Amino acid sequence: MSHPAHPELARTGPIAFAGSPIDRADLIRVDPEALAARMDWRAKVLLLDGLLPQIGEDGMLQWGTLADVDPEAELVFLGLLEEKACFAAVPDDGATGPAYAMPRAWAAIQQLSPPDLAIYGGARSLVDWHARHRFCARCGSATKPAKGGWQRNCDNCQAQHFPRTDPVTIMLVENEGRLLLGRQPRFPPRSFSALAGFVEPGETIEEAVAREVWEEAGLRVRDVEYIATQPWPFPSQLMIGCYSQTDETEITLDVEELEEARWFTRDEVEHAVSHARGYEDDGVETAFTAPPPTAIAYSLMHWWLEKTK
Amino acid sequence: MSHPAHPELARTGPIAFAGSPIDRADLIRVDPEALAARMDWRAKVLLLDGLLPQIGEDGMLQWGTLADVDPEAELVFLGLLEEKACFAAVPDDGATGPAYAMPRAWAAIQQLSPPDLAIYGGARSLVDWHARHRFCARCGSATKPAKGGWQRNCDNCQAQHFPRTDPVTIMLVENEGRLLLGRQPRFPPRSFSALAGFVEPGETIEEAVAREVWEEAGLRVRDVEYIATQPWPFPSQLMIGCYSQTDETEITLDVEELEEARWFTRDEVEHAVSHARGYEDDGVETAFTAPPPTAIAYSLMHWWLEKTK
Repeated sequence: MSHPAHPELARTGPIAFAGSPIDRADLIRVDPEALAARMDWRAKVLLLDGLLPQIGEDGMLQWGTLADVDPEAELVFLGLLEEKACFAAVPDDGATGPAYAMPRAWAAIQQLSPPDLAIYGGARSLVDWHARHRFCARCGSATKPAKGGWQRNCDNCQAQHFPRTDPVTIMLVENEGRLLLGRQPRFPPRSFSALAGFVEPGETIEEAVAREVWEEAGLRVRDVEYIATQPWPFPSQLMIGCYSQTDETEITLDVEELEEARWFTRDEVEHAVSHARGYEDDGVETAFTAPPPTAIAYSLMHWWLEKTK
Repeated sequence: MSHPAHPELARTGPIAFAGSPIDRADLIRVDPEALAARMDWRAKVLLLDGLLPQIGEDGMLQWGTLADVDPEAELVFLGLLEEKACFAAVPDDGATGPAYAMPRAWAAIQQLSPPDLAIYGGARSLVDWHARHRFCARCGSATKPAKGGWQRNCDNCQAQHFPRTDPVTIMLVENEGRLLLGRQPRFPPRSFSALAGFVEPGETIEEAVAREVWEEAGLRVRDVEYIATQPWPFPSQLMIGCYSQTDETEITLDVEELEEARWFTRDEVEHAVSHARGYEDDGVETAFTAPPPTAIAYSLMHWWLEKTK
């Protein structure tokens, strides 16, 4: 069976890192013989420099063959692309830092086309997980990949481990036509974005949104609404984009998390988003630097601007 | 600062395991002195029998004091309840099986009130994570709890580990007034529920829904819509409830995952849900056994029945 067409785009419009053209081909993944039969000279291997994509002069992801990878490296099966099996090799080391603290990765992802960005993001999350999970969290023994790299098994205690995806809420908060945005100390100068935080065990998406806005800005929100999600590969978050409203305006900042949080008018957001998109440089300084189009925070702001037109 | 009122209920109505009355009190969590000051005779400790709740004759969760727990046990800080610090002790062993394969846990959760269910669920996820993550996945060394049990640190390689929450999509699929429901081989006899599957690295919620329905039933869906989430503590899933439609009706079953999948009419779903709620026993056999009200699949069916009234 071939892969279905992707469902309609999110109501924000395209989301970066979504829309991978790779068919995950779960029936091959779980069948060792079928998988082995795909590991021949026809197989494609995504070329990586550690966790960085190798980008050709044409601006595209570079692919090689199984001959291009260290025979000792662990391989993961990404799926099928135009019926060809695609793999990636697990690098020696993983990385957990935020993308904006990795200038080479940050620059690379601004270059890639939407399908390549989605392929790279999915591969990066998966190989990074392997690189950082070579031992069994339950008993401390070394583990081995299984099911084409979508599982690791412990021969000592028989525990099975699966790639991790951490749900994170990221939220617009509106008060009477203005948006609450914040900046972490590590952001580039003048950059502001939507508040965000991990969903914890024991709470819903809506509860996580309310808790994060309360913890970081001291505001009580109402009418939390789900807008869109983004798979974010630094290292492997499911960014759950939401919109909420508040009747409160006085911000109580959590200085451990944020350096500053402020209300921005619709005009200020529109101006900053236009600059971030690169369509407009009117020479007038924006009130803040908006996130780039690769970030779901950008997509949420864009959605909000359309909604409030 | 006290905890904010919970945001409005999900549009399905109450969701089991959501709405915990505990204030997670992140400022205490991250402050070792503040946390130590709360660990005195006033602290409450949730009494557990391994991972099972201890339920009193009044049907409520039982609480003790720090004197009731093994002095060697790792303690996690659940947060504040009526200004009192609440803790739970990590048991020797965790568990990863589904809830319906644990008859004692399954029976216990049907007894608890909504607030107690939410407290128990959050605590169970957290202590189970500790019990199954005592070693560093990066280097294999033993790790130690930090930040009141919301982190584990590795002194050997300096890795930090955080409680895991796995996003899972669970979806209603409608074709012209009928719902697609399936049964796994391990389900109790006659039980059918919504299809479900883990969100993988590199995909959105909507893409995960489309992939799961394609993989398990061979149907292409459109118009995927987010409805509600539930924190499910067996062991720690974020159940993301969605609704979708399909124009296709011929099911191609993935026999590795499902024993059966069928279309059910609105009348059949309504009858089964009424029985599951316990409001109605008309003596007529239902077409299938619906999930209990503690499952988000029940809430989704209830939402759909209201929507299609």
